[in-house]
Amino acid sequence: ACPLIAVKLNGFACKNPAWVQANDFSFSGLHNPGNTGNPFGSAITPVTVAQIPGLNTLGISMVRIDYAPWGIVAPHYHPRATEIITVIEGSLEVGFVTSNPDNRLISKTLQKGDVFVFPVGLLHFQRNVGHMNAVTISALSSQNPGVSTIANVIFGSKPDISTNILAKAFQVDKNIVQQIQRKF
Amino acid sequence: ACPLIAVKLNGFACKNPAWVQANDFSFSGLHNPGNTGNPFGSAITPVTVAQIPGLNTLGISMVRIDYAPWGIVAPHYHPRATEIITVIEGSLEVGFVTSNPDNRLISKTLQKGDVFVFPVGLLHFQRNVGHMNAVTISALSSQNPGVSTIANVIFGSKPDISTNILAKAFQVDKNIVQQIQRKF
Amino acid sequence: ACPLIAVKLNGFACKNPAWVQANDFSFSGLHNPGNTGNPFGSAITPVTVAQIPGLNTLGISMVRIDYAPWGIVAPHYHPRATEIITVIEGSLEVGFVTSNPDNRLISKTLQKGDVFVFPVGLLHFQRNVGHMNAVTISALSSQNPGVSTIANVIFGSKPDISTNILAKAFQVDKNIVQQIQRKF
Amino acid sequence: ACPLIAVKLNGFACKNPAWVQANDFSFSGLHNPGNTGNPFGSAITPVTVAQIPGLNTLGISMVRIDYAPWGIVAPHYHPRATEIITVIEGSLEVGFVTSNPDNRLISKTLQKGDVFVFPVGLLHFQRNVGHMNAVTISALSSQNPGVSTIANVIFGSKPDISTNILAKAFQVDKNIVQQIQRKF
Amino acid sequence: ACPLIAVKLNGFACKNPAWVQANDFSFSGLHNPGNTGNPFGSAITPVTVAQIPGLNTLGISMVRIDYAPWGIVAPHYHPRATEIITVIEGSLEVGFVTSNPDNRLISKTLQKGDVFVFPVGLLHFQRNVGHMNAVTISALSSQNPGVSTIANVIFGSKPDISTNILAKAFQVDKNIVQQIQRKF
Amino acid sequence: ACPLIAVKLNGFACKNPAWVQANDFSFSGLHNPGNTGNPFGSAITPVTVAQIPGLNTLGISMVRIDYAPWGIVAPHYHPRATEIITVIEGSLEVGFVTSNPDNRLISKTLQKGDVFVFPVGLLHFQRNVGHMNAVTISALSSQNPGVSTIANVIFGSKPDISTNILAKAFQVDKNIVQQIQRKF
Repeated sequence: ACPLIAVKLNGFACKNPAWVQANDFSFSGLHNPGNTGNPFGSAITPVTVAQIPGLNTLGISMVRIDYAPWGIVAPHYHPRATEIITVIEGSLEVGFVTSNPDNRLISKTLQKGDVFVFPVGLLHFQRNVGHMNAVTISALSSQNPGVSTIANVIFGSKPDISTNILAKAFQVDKNIVQQIQRKF
Repeated sequence: ACPLIAVKLNGFACKNPAWVQANDFSFSGLHNPGNTGNPFGSAITPVTVAQIPGLNTLGISMVRIDYAPWGIVAPHYHPRATEIITVIEGSLEVGFVTSNPDNRLISKTLQKGDVFVFPVGLLHFQRNVGHMNAVTISALSSQNPGVSTIANVIFGSKPDISTNILAKAFQVDKNIVQQIQRKF
Repeated sequence: ACPLIAVKLNGFACKNPAWVQANDFSFSGLHNPGNTGNPFGSAITPVTVAQIPGLNTLGISMVRIDYAPWGIVAPHYHPRATEIITVIEGSLEVGFVTSNPDNRLISKTLQKGDVFVFPVGLLHFQRNVGHMNAVTISALSSQNPGVSTIANVIFGSKPDISTNILAKAFQVDKNIVQQIQRKF
Repeated sequence: ACPLIAVKLNGFACKNPAWVQANDFSFSGLHNPGNTGNPFGSAITPVTVAQIPGLNTLGISMVRIDYAPWGIVAPHYHPRATEIITVIEGSLEVGFVTSNPDNRLISKTLQKGDVFVFPVGLLHFQRNVGHMNAVTISALSSQNPGVSTIANVIFGSKPDISTNILAKAFQVDKNIVQQIQRKF
Repeated sequence: ACPLIAVKLNGFACKNPAWVQANDFSFSGLHNPGNTGNPFGSAITPVTVAQIPGLNTLGISMVRIDYAPWGIVAPHYHPRATEIITVIEGSLEVGFVTSNPDNRLISKTLQKGDVFVFPVGLLHFQRNVGHMNAVTISALSSQNPGVSTIANVIFGSKPDISTNILAKAFQVDKNIVQQIQRKF
Repeated sequence: ACPLIAVKLNGFACKNPAWVQANDFSFSGLHNPGNTGNPFGSAITPVTVAQIPGLNTLGISMVRIDYAPWGIVAPHYHPRATEIITVIEGSLEVGFVTSNPDNRLISKTLQKGDVFVFPVGLLHFQRNVGHMNAVTISALSSQNPGVSTIANVIFGSKPDISTNILAKAFQVDKNIVQQIQRKF
């Protein structure tokens, strides 16, 4: 469903179907742990249309996540995809929050072999609740699901959202807003 | 495209097409200002499938928003809709933030008669930047667009997201997290 | 979801997401009355992908309509969109007609602040039923909804539909058909 | 994709997939000529979800049309479908009209074995241009495409669209409008 | 919904809407019998976006099939379309098979004027069960439905699927697999 | 997007959104090897809407597959989904075959950590090409993707497809067809 190679569709290059090769549909290295040496203690290895051109228009992608002990994937959402996640190693607390007005937190502690679903567009997070590294494999219902991490879109946008707006939105002093903005 | 009256589709009741009346497709009162006497200085009057049953499956809804001077609609997103907004009265600063990794803030100060677009799933906000009340009319590309207000889904979920996760996510002390959680 | 700037998708130019600016998502002037000095006594100010390039693929658009006293928007339909309309000023008779075999007219007189829905593809119309000017704001569930005005597509096509067909379709003499064709 | 038998989806009954039979997917009699003894000289034999329950959610339907010499299918459109038509017997003038502002008539005289396309939502018509009966088979891209025949939705709705509106819409005297309304 | 002529969308060329002509929406010759002089005794005449450029994005196509006495359309499926078929001449045994785990064969012998449905993606086949030629007209719910004929995708791929895999898949000796592979 | 609990949509029960619990979105046991003691040497553990009710309407599912040494997943396709697969343990030969007329086999030998894509509706297969057990995790772009295994839908349907049709389709003697039919 993808046009000729000279064209970009959805921002990605397309190839004449007569010329596609196995390499247009494959990726290597998802068994390699990511580097969790960062403030969040987690590492994301995405396999989307940016890594596999043949995924364009096919509506699916995959991601490996590594978690150091107590590492988190900070609260975020995918503007264009549902996520289904399974635990390969370790124990994880996961949850999603429904939209207004209920804002219910639906959460669970997952063990190895457990599977969980984050419905499209809903805010969610993961945390390693064990003393060992953890690993998950997820799939998302878009070849280009997008990720909006709350800390980054709220406190780390370029340029910044004005401090006035954020102070009122979170009902805190401006200096607390600025303190967080300096981190992102 | 809606089944018989005994059935709920997408959570809303359906009616036999042979029995629909004009009232199934109408709503009154969008000219009435909402009550902006709250910490955010804004009031939302939605017209979705919850107000107009005939909207079910039709993929559109409308909303009026009133803003006290300097009032805001706090940063939020719609899991299932693009929004197009026009200013009926007043001046507003509006903006949306693109997803990772760029997190670009695309913003503009709107005057009466200006129109702006918030693409599906992207975080956005509005602020009255004048000393008078402001009014906007928006439309959304779903009969049930959903609203996830960041302050509420992050700091006001029921039950709470654990303080440990939020402190690490925003790189702040737990007592700041708890201070915000008490507000929501 | 829009390819690079060199490409037109759905007939409209696309821009590299890294280069988009606020102006790609905005439009000015929707507060200005249109000129209703025409035989129908109405004026349409559309805000679709033709006016806001950033609307491409986002599935929504907006339109302001001005009505002189007793002015009409003649019977028409949108091939690709549902419409939701609200009255900003004045009183309007509006209605839509269901398809064969029932051809039910679902109509209502709307006052300021009333909202009404015209389901996708169904014939509809509006008429100012007061002695003052009227104004409405509508939204449509497509960035390019299309408008097929019956008088124009039936009696004003280029070239004309043959008089024989129209005389038989409406069960009238050919000279009546030709009389109407001369107007469009 | 259809729920249990007790439920109607899209207004049609559904059956447990384990109980479906060949008869749920079949219809007989499309070789029988329809009765063209009416003012339009044509007869429509539809095969939609109303005739074949198993078509529900599958997005296609079929129709046979018979035309007496010089018979027409009056100008109409399908709110939810593209139509592809082929001539089994006879010669037909067919055409569709693009939406505003161009209102181009794209027409052709079709012979036996010719195929033509009427894009979704666009007004179109057919006329037998020979002295013999004609027959066509069409398919439509919805199991429930809908038909809005202009003469019926404009001049034959129940109740009538007001004569004032139609007289202004078509720029004719009210008595011409009323003359046509009496026919439908 | 198709971009300018320089672009290919879905692999097919697009044309500026202002330049389309009736020939972009038409095809001739569907009344001509195909040549059934082949081992299967059938001939397919497709009318898809490859034959009618104007079908691009419109979601429908048509096909004529001729069958010699006892000729078959071998078991196949359409990856992207439901098919609705009607018998113009002759008698045909048709059937489709539901997916795992039931694998139910839903079949029927069709006479002239009968209509049958093959739901999207399900394996199906047709056989002329009379001593005369048979003819069918089908429509499919995609402008580019695709055809995967089992014998060809299993035993005739380029290069071959390995004999080991096929022998185990069908639980037969390799020499039987190789015997069939030589035919395709 | 799922109606009340009394209703089945797409054949699965729906639950009032206010009553959903974490268990409606979770599944346990995907770390457990399946039993590969069968003629194909493979075992499928699906996690679809049949296992996780909350997946209904969300457009994604997951599956674990175990392979004994030289075990295969026999050629099959998913009528409603693209599949993305990653190798957790072992080495696998995988491939898919494009539709008519090219019938190209796109194949690759995958190692641990490799990812591959089977586009929607295309025939594909996997084979363990090592002396150790192998394990894969796949995701599919539908909550109910369906599986049509060729050997079963061709040679194991209930009732059987007639031997005459299959003998002609595969260009072999009827006794070979019957020999395979007895296995399925």
